[in-house]
Amino acid sequence: MKTKTPRESYTEITEMVLPNDTNPLGNLMGGQLLHLMDIAAAIAAGRHSNRVCVTASVDFVDFKGPIKLGEVVIISASVTRAFTTSMEVKLWVFAENTLTGVRRECNSAYYTFVAVDQGGQPIPVNKLKPETPEEQELYEGALRRRELRLILAGRRSPEEVNTLKDLLQQRVEQS
Amino acid sequence: MKTKTPRESYTEITEMVLPNDTNPLGNLMGGQLLHLMDIAAAIAAGRHSNRVCVTASVDFVDFKGPIKLGEVVIISASVTRAFTTSMEVKLWVFAENTLTGVRRECNSAYYTFVAVDQGGQPIPVNKLKPETPEEQELYEGALRRRELRLILAGRRSPEEVNTLKDLLQQRVEQS
Amino acid sequence: MKTKTPRESYTEITEMVLPNDTNPLGNLMGGQLLHLMDIAAAIAAGRHSNRVCVTASVDFVDFKGPIKLGEVVIISASVTRAFTTSMEVKLWVFAENTLTGVRRECNSAYYTFVAVDQGGQPIPVNKLKPETPEEQELYEGALRRRELRLILAGRRSPEEVNTLKDLLQQRVEQS
Amino acid sequence: MKTKTPRESYTEITEMVLPNDTNPLGNLMGGQLLHLMDIAAAIAAGRHSNRVCVTASVDFVDFKGPIKLGEVVIISASVTRAFTTSMEVKLWVFAENTLTGVRRECNSAYYTFVAVDQGGQPIPVNKLKPETPEEQELYEGALRRRELRLILAGRRSPEEVNTLKDLLQQRVEQS
Amino acid sequence: MKTKTPRESYTEITEMVLPNDTNPLGNLMGGQLLHLMDIAAAIAAGRHSNRVCVTASVDFVDFKGPIKLGEVVIISASVTRAFTTSMEVKLWVFAENTLTGVRRECNSAYYTFVAVDQGGQPIPVNKLKPETPEEQELYEGALRRRELRLILAGRRSPEEVNTLKDLLQQRVEQS
Amino acid sequence: MKTKTPRESYTEITEMVLPNDTNPLGNLMGGQLLHLMDIAAAIAAGRHSNRVCVTASVDFVDFKGPIKLGEVVIISASVTRAFTTSMEVKLWVFAENTLTGVRRECNSAYYTFVAVDQGGQPIPVNKLKPETPEEQELYEGALRRRELRLILAGRRSPEEVNTLKDLLQQRVEQS
Repeated sequence: MKTKTPRESYTEITEMVLPNDTNPLGNLMGGQLLHLMDIAAAIAAGRHSNRVCVTASVDFVDFKGPIKLGEVVIISASVTRAFTTSMEVKLWVFAENTLTGVRRECNSAYYTFVAVDQGGQPIPVNKLKPETPEEQELYEGALRRRELRLILAGRRSPEEVNTLKDLLQQRVEQS
Repeated sequence: MKTKTPRESYTEITEMVLPNDTNPLGNLMGGQLLHLMDIAAAIAAGRHSNRVCVTASVDFVDFKGPIKLGEVVIISASVTRAFTTSMEVKLWVFAENTLTGVRRECNSAYYTFVAVDQGGQPIPVNKLKPETPEEQELYEGALRRRELRLILAGRRSPEEVNTLKDLLQQRVEQS
Repeated sequence: MKTKTPRESYTEITEMVLPNDTNPLGNLMGGQLLHLMDIAAAIAAGRHSNRVCVTASVDFVDFKGPIKLGEVVIISASVTRAFTTSMEVKLWVFAENTLTGVRRECNSAYYTFVAVDQGGQPIPVNKLKPETPEEQELYEGALRRRELRLILAGRRSPEEVNTLKDLLQQRVEQS
Repeated sequence: MKTKTPRESYTEITEMVLPNDTNPLGNLMGGQLLHLMDIAAAIAAGRHSNRVCVTASVDFVDFKGPIKLGEVVIISASVTRAFTTSMEVKLWVFAENTLTGVRRECNSAYYTFVAVDQGGQPIPVNKLKPETPEEQELYEGALRRRELRLILAGRRSPEEVNTLKDLLQQRVEQS
Repeated sequence: MKTKTPRESYTEITEMVLPNDTNPLGNLMGGQLLHLMDIAAAIAAGRHSNRVCVTASVDFVDFKGPIKLGEVVIISASVTRAFTTSMEVKLWVFAENTLTGVRRECNSAYYTFVAVDQGGQPIPVNKLKPETPEEQELYEGALRRRELRLILAGRRSPEEVNTLKDLLQQRVEQS
Repeated sequence: MKTKTPRESYTEITEMVLPNDTNPLGNLMGGQLLHLMDIAAAIAAGRHSNRVCVTASVDFVDFKGPIKLGEVVIISASVTRAFTTSMEVKLWVFAENTLTGVRRECNSAYYTFVAVDQGGQPIPVNKLKPETPEEQELYEGALRRRELRLILAGRRSPEEVNTLKDLLQQRVEQS
């Protein structure tokens, strides 16, 4: 078992929006973007754990504005925290129009992956140690986001939900 | 403007898992499933609104167990509630192994779509009127889920977040 | 060996016509539709037999009018009759324009599938028992269509062909 | 309007069977082969008519034995006869295993295409004049096959069907 | 070990340019053409060697003019010379507009393939014996092109490079 | 007209090798890699020129060792020199096995792109100014490589070829 930094799992994928990725308005379909985000996150989780990693869950994803045919999508991904067999990966999505040279932020999201052995069973993963203040903040927030996930997945009892009140309060205060 | 029932937007897509949809363990990749769910939801939203519809957000999605190469994925989708220009769509995912004849429930999720005109601007959609008790419950819950989305998207002020406490309490009590 | 009803193999697939499925006029290519019909029929045959099923033959398919980019294709399929190792599957193709809400019938066709074992050898399949009058009629017609297939495949001697005269006479009288 | 020979529309396509074209046994899916045949036939019809051509119908196709992953599929196509706005195309399918060097005949089929203008309306096509005895035979047979198509499509009245008896008798005697 | 002629490895592939193969101007992307050329060359190398063949190198490729969406690409390939475990394949690329009936020459290129066993190790291949004067010229030129490849790959010492001067002189005199 | 640095066009794409990208040995096909390299180079050229860019030529590409199914391909690209309407792009290809954490260098190559206007006609591009010693060396070498390209494309007369002798001599001495 090793301890790794978020930088060691950092992954950046860059894709050109092709005709088959678009809807009748010529914009990248949301599901195709979710698919690309999943690939970026799977590579980041694989780099952290050195294991085959499978998608366990996807947090709320908010799409902001269309990405057009011919534009470039850039997705960067880093593991923010490792739990026993699972990892939280943060994704940042950008779109770039090479004709104008303008790159714009699209959205960010969290995917959770589980490392599995050849039989598909969960297997422990390397530890993660944040280095920068931003990584430290993501590392700490990962615990709160995990609580929210367990509630949303129906895996928490009523008495446990009270702590969530504070989590959400914190979220709103941060934004 | 018409008023439609959830049944009028009901959509069922059925896909065979092909080699290119799978990871090195031969299982359907999570991102590919999110992509198929997006197509099913887009058709359901299109059937309700008779407009081109684009993905606005995806709620928390929890993946349960692998779907194997050669298995069949069945996704059904219905609009649960229409707002001014947006619609919430619920998706139910099933996997079926035709060799054993066993069909298993995989997960469910909510996608939100916005109807747009040819210039890509949001445009009002038909109303939705639930018919069955189950549809009525989904219709009512849509309001609470929308509140949660606005908080998660950072579009709610701190004082508004208190109502969410109750929403989550309700969710936990239901599960 | 079980006896199943056509309803147990009923399969419905729904696809959005994407750019790469279309010809220079923006219409779904005939070959792409034949491919989708094959997938629907393979799932129906798999549901009836619980075996891997391979396409044995495709009857005459008549294409009626174009299906446009962005429209939705709905294909439903059911096993109409099971023979020793083969099954006849009937397919109904519809196209739907979600912008107008109009769904139109496109065509119907018969595909024949053979169930095979892991070595690719034909293997006996479950029996089929029709329930409704329409299913009963398809079940009886399957025998005549099979005769026509054997003649078209050059597997019938000249003396056997006389019975076909009546088959075709019946077909014309029905239409 | 020109008069062309079958040789002028002769088309040969060669494809390697890739993983995504195969079923769980690693064999080319029937629907994928029908799709490739459609592309070959569309090119042949385009070469004859110098028009955009759309699939009008596909005659009975009989599949003989599997084509494996990594094998090569060779499809040749030629227009056999031109009618007012439609053309019959004959297709010959071969599979080749480059490891053994053996090429085997798989099947043959007839596709019918219609030439269309930019509005998608049928438009007259060049005449076809057969050169070799084999082409002459295909040219003459095209008339009988067209009769059978009209009957199968339900476009012939009962009194017209008698002529078909002879057509089928001829077919059986030839095989 | 057999001795084969270039004709025995002759391969012709024909493809229609589909939307997803094109850039925002509606022209076939260069990389997609390189991919098709690789498939044609791999089949030719496989036909000569009866082995799985992998791409070892691609010589300079010069693209001349766009190939448009809906046009047909024809690539022919032949082995020009066999070395111990490698083969040089020449490719000729043509584009055809079926609406005008005009076929134009696009470019030509040389790909080198290596035959490999199941473990991926290089394995000796059949000899090649040119028949026509054109094949003889390609056969002889293959030696000079191989020298150039070794220099470009950095596998030749300074004293060996002098012979290349003559090779290039010959090339310029031929063009 | 602006003057840009190589860093401003720097592009990195990261792709997972999926089943359909592989040959029967489970290795990435050479043509698929050439296709990915073309996309990376097109994005780099687009970032430098803020124009639609089309592939003009590809220099000698030497493949070193297989890249396996499930491995990750990383391609980085930068414009090395801008001419009037064309740009030379250097590409570096790496493969990474996330299970072992080992990243290995695969090969490097030069692609040339031309910027075009909406009518597909060449159009002048931004100047490039190298910053680092390595960029300076690539910038100077671009002139020699361009000479070699013109000779290989048959666009140089015999008397001009003498200068190439020196170019190749330099190349060999550098390696």
